[in-house]
Order: sequence, then C-alpha cells, then structure tokens
Amino acid sequence: MLKSLAEKILGSKKPAIARGISLVENESKQAGELLKLLYKHTGNAYLIGITGPPGAGKSTLTNCLTKILREKGFKVGIICVDPTSPFTGGALLGDRIRMQELGIDEDIFIRSMATRGSLGGLSKKAKEASEILDASGKDFIILETVGVGQSELDIAQTADTTIVVLVPESGDAVQTMKAGLMEIGDIFVINKSDRDGSDALGVALRTMLHLKMTKESDRQIPVVKTVASKNKNVGELYDFIILHKEYLMKNGKLAKKRKENLLKQINLLVNNKLENKFWTAGKKKELEENIEKISERELTPYDFVDNLFYSGN
Amino acid sequence: MLKSLAEKILGSKKPAIARGISLVENESKQAGELLKLLYKHTGNAYLIGITGPPGAGKSTLTNCLTKILREKGFKVGIICVDPTSPFTGGALLGDRIRMQELGIDEDIFIRSMATRGSLGGLSKKAKEASEILDASGKDFIILETVGVGQSELDIAQTADTTIVVLVPESGDAVQTMKAGLMEIGDIFVINKSDRDGSDALGVALRTMLHLKMTKESDRQIPVVKTVASKNKNVGELYDFIILHKEYLMKNGKLAKKRKENLLKQINLLVNNKLENKFWTAGKKKELEENIEKISERELTPYDFVDNLFYSGN
Repeated sequence: MLKSLAEKILGSKKPAIARGISLVENESKQAGELLKLLYKHTGNAYLIGITGPPGAGKSTLTNCLTKILREKGFKVGIICVDPTSPFTGGALLGDRIRMQELGIDEDIFIRSMATRGSLGGLSKKAKEASEILDASGKDFIILETVGVGQSELDIAQTADTTIVVLVPESGDAVQTMKAGLMEIGDIFVINKSDRDGSDALGVALRTMLHLKMTKESDRQIPVVKTVASKNKNVGELYDFIILHKEYLMKNGKLAKKRKENLLKQINLLVNNKLENKFWTAGKKKELEENIEKISERELTPYDFVDNLFYSGN
Repeated sequence: MLKSLAEKILGSKKPAIARGISLVENESKQAGELLKLLYKHTGNAYLIGITGPPGAGKSTLTNCLTKILREKGFKVGIICVDPTSPFTGGALLGDRIRMQELGIDEDIFIRSMATRGSLGGLSKKAKEASEILDASGKDFIILETVGVGQSELDIAQTADTTIVVLVPESGDAVQTMKAGLMEIGDIFVINKSDRDGSDALGVALRTMLHLKMTKESDRQIPVVKTVASKNKNVGELYDFIILHKEYLMKNGKLAKKRKENLLKQINLLVNNKLENKFWTAGKKKELEENIEKISERELTPYDFVDNLFYSGN
C-alpha cells in the first residue's frame, strides 16, 4: 500500500502528495517507510525559503513568484509553516483565496503545516514534506514561514536560497535585526515599497549588509524593492533567485550547503530518536516528581540524571 | 580525596576552588562526583551575567562593580568565558592587571574559562563552575562573556540578572540587535558614555526597549550610562542590580526562573550523556564512510540512522 502511495506521489498525483504530507505531519510510523521509498527520487528540486515578520506580505509575494515560475514552465510546491496555530489572523482567508487562484493548477501544490506544541519537530516535518514534493517532480519548492521564531529561522535556513521580506514601517528593521534575520538572508526584499520609509530602510539594510559582507561573503547580497499586491518588481526578485542559484552551482557551494544540511538532518534524526526513546512516560513522571526536590537541594541534578539512565522506566 | 577537596571548597580555600573548576573544565569524571557533594550548598549566590560586543569595556566594568560589591561586604566570584582562545587580544594583559588589583583579596575569586572546539559544552561548564563558586560561599557571581555568540548568550541567560554592555560607536547598536542581545538584557549599560553618540544610542535603545516592553514585561528595563575607566556611574548600575534582584524575589520570579534553568540543565545533562554514549568512534566512522552515499541518494538518511541504532559499534 505504501509502495502504491509512493508511486502515485512519483506520478505527481495531488491526493497522494497530500496523504504523504499528512503521514509526515502526524508522525505516523509509515512516514519513515514512505520517505525511504522516495529518497532516491529527491535532490532535483530547488528550495526557496521565504521568511520575515508577520504582515510583510510574504503570502502575496509567494503567489506572485509562483505565477512567474509557472510562466517559465516550472512545477511548484509551496509549504506554508505556521508554528502557532493552523489559521492565525488572516491566514485562513488568505489560504482559501490562494487555493482558488493557484490550487486548481495541476502543477502547483500548496500545503499549510501547522503544529501546535512540538516546535522542535517542525523543521524536521517541513524538511520531510519538502522531500515528498521534491519526489513528486516539483522544480521549485517554496518554504514560507509565518513568523520569525527560532524554528522558523531553522526552516528558512534549510533552503538553497533564503529570502527575507521586510516592510518600510518603522520598528520592522529593528524587529528584523533582533530576530537574527540579517544573518540568514541570501536576498532581502522590501515589500510594500510604495510606502513611506522604504528608501530609509533600503539604505539602512545596505549599510548593514555591507558591514557584514566585508567579513563573510564574496557575493553582494541584493536588496529588492517590491509591491507584491501590485505585482511590481517580483520579476526582478525572480532574476536574483536564478542568479543566486547559478552562483551556488558554479562553485560547488550548493553541494556543500546541501551536504551540511544533510549532516544536520542526520543529527536531528538521531537526537529525535534518542530523546523519544529516552523520555518514556515513566521518566517524565520521575522528573515531575523530583524537580521540586532538586530545586530544594534535597537531590542533585547529577544523581537524578544518573539514576534516570539506570531506571527501568 | 574528593570529599576533602569539597570541604576545602566549602571553606572557601582558593587553591581548592581552582582545582574544582579545573576538574569541571577538563570534563574529568571526578567533576560529577564533586558537584554532587557540593550541590546542597548551592543556591545562595546571586548570578550576574555581563555580555556585549568585544571592546565594550566589560572587564573594566566588572572590576568596578566588584569593588562596590566588596565595599558592601559581599564575597565575589568572577568567571570570564572566552570560547575562542584562552587569551584573545587584550585579555591576557587585562587578566594579569585584574589579578594584581583584585586577586589578592581573599574574598574574590577570578577565573578565565577558555574552551577551544567544544562550544556546546561551554555553557554546561560555566554553569558548573558557578556552582563551585556558589558552594564556596560567594554572595555574587559574575559571569562575564567576551563576545556575543550563541553559547555566550546561553551563558548570560542562566544568570539571575543579565547586563548587556554597549558603546556609543556607530555599528555597535546594529551588531547588538543582530546578535539578539535586545532579548536578553535585564539592564542595559552604555559604557564609554563620554564619547560621541552616547545620547543617540540611549534614545535608540529606550525606543526599542519601549516597543519590547509593551508586549513582554511589567518592568521598565533601565539604561545606565557609565564610564567604567573613570569609575563613573557604576554605583547607579549596582543600585539597578539590587532593584532587579528585589523585583525577582518579591513576586516569586526568581524561583521560577531558577526552576526553568534547572529543567534546561537537566535536559542538557541528559542530551550530553545520550549523545556521548551514542556517537562512538565506530558510529562516527560509519557516518563519515556513508555521507557521500547518502548525498548521492544511494542510501537514505532514514535507513542509515535506523542501521546506526542497531549496529554494534
């Protein structure tokens, strides 16, 4: 049955892709088996990460970019990651509009992944969902995150090209820097750039990127001004993505980046497995029962952990 | 022998404290045993974290603050954490001057901790060293970090009060925000505040903190202007530390913060133990031998990790 599901995914059947991603999302035991079957068909898609503060217009930008990619004949997968809730704020409405606009196209697959609670597992799940889309023959996969939490930065960083989207409103530049976004962007976008403050943000960004560049990079990090709601300048953004892709491929950096991500993925798989195996219900209960004692210095954390390793639970 | 070492540490003997911290630093097996013996005597010291970009004058500030604490009759421990090298830049000279100035005082203990390589272990080691100082009867322990890397932020965050030190030079505010320092400061210091740009940085900081506050805190985060080299305004900084301490103690936040840190410490102990046990030389070799195959899609990371868990190595 899994074999037939895998074949349908390889044949790019939408219901099969949806089913596969659900298995991953629910941490089903079958997910691992499915990913094993698909793995040798992956590695062909190019991953684009889109991140930035809420309200920066990332969804609209993703839509415009997807249309351009489709015009060029590429197949596109979109994973929208929202760690807080399935439908925060305008996301529900936005998703429905998107489904109507893009979802009827056979060569576009859109999926929102929402995980309440287990934040740590989210980057693992997003990576695995992108493998399913990759195997289904998508040429480009867009990983769009809703906010700028740590796990969302992790996700954006697993992409080949990471795009950071900002808006000219004061405070946003500050939020951006606070959130560590400066470190991870391969391309910066100032969206809603018809608003006041766009030029100032552009200058601030370029100055900061210049400070960074002189130390870290042999490539000028572009800053693109767009108005996604009016489809303005998204073509320029597309060009910069392709330029970055060529840059990475020319000097072996893509292979290097992907191998580093693979090592991270393996470490994550190992740690997940180790922690899951270790923290049985019995051990969690032991921690709960003893934390007060440890706090009160009646038991040392060192003895507690030692005992935990030898307890039968 | 360990018991006698523990007794000497409890008696605040400097050579014993130094020996204990060395055991921790070298990840000696005896370290765990020593920490077990000392644990019930900990929890009395108040931890101050001091962090900020290199060259902000953190050492000088630490010295001034230590003198004030000594004038008030408090015993002080100082751990200076430098993850890159034992003596980067001026640290060697600075340390020697400090030793001469402060180190002859029986109730001050200063130690530089430098760990090349294993960054992950550094916050664990700094925490354990602070437990030794705590057990030795120090009233205040200052954890001073040299730079603003992730592990240094982790260390600063284990403190009860975290102080972020900045200087008016342009670029520094930017670096600060990039590095995620805005999130962790309980008190901000603009040191070298007799230089140009001090007022502008103060305004920028207060604006940012105000934006943050409205969302996150019921307490106004102070910004203190000092000139540590002239011992100017460090008394004001001391007052703000005491105010923060009283704030945390009054509403049970200190106990809550320390319990959260304890849970983090236990998780860290467990993960360290799990990873150390798991990644045997044999398993590391297996990863090395197979990473190319996995990259080339001849082997899936899922099968590889599964096999790793069942291999005898």
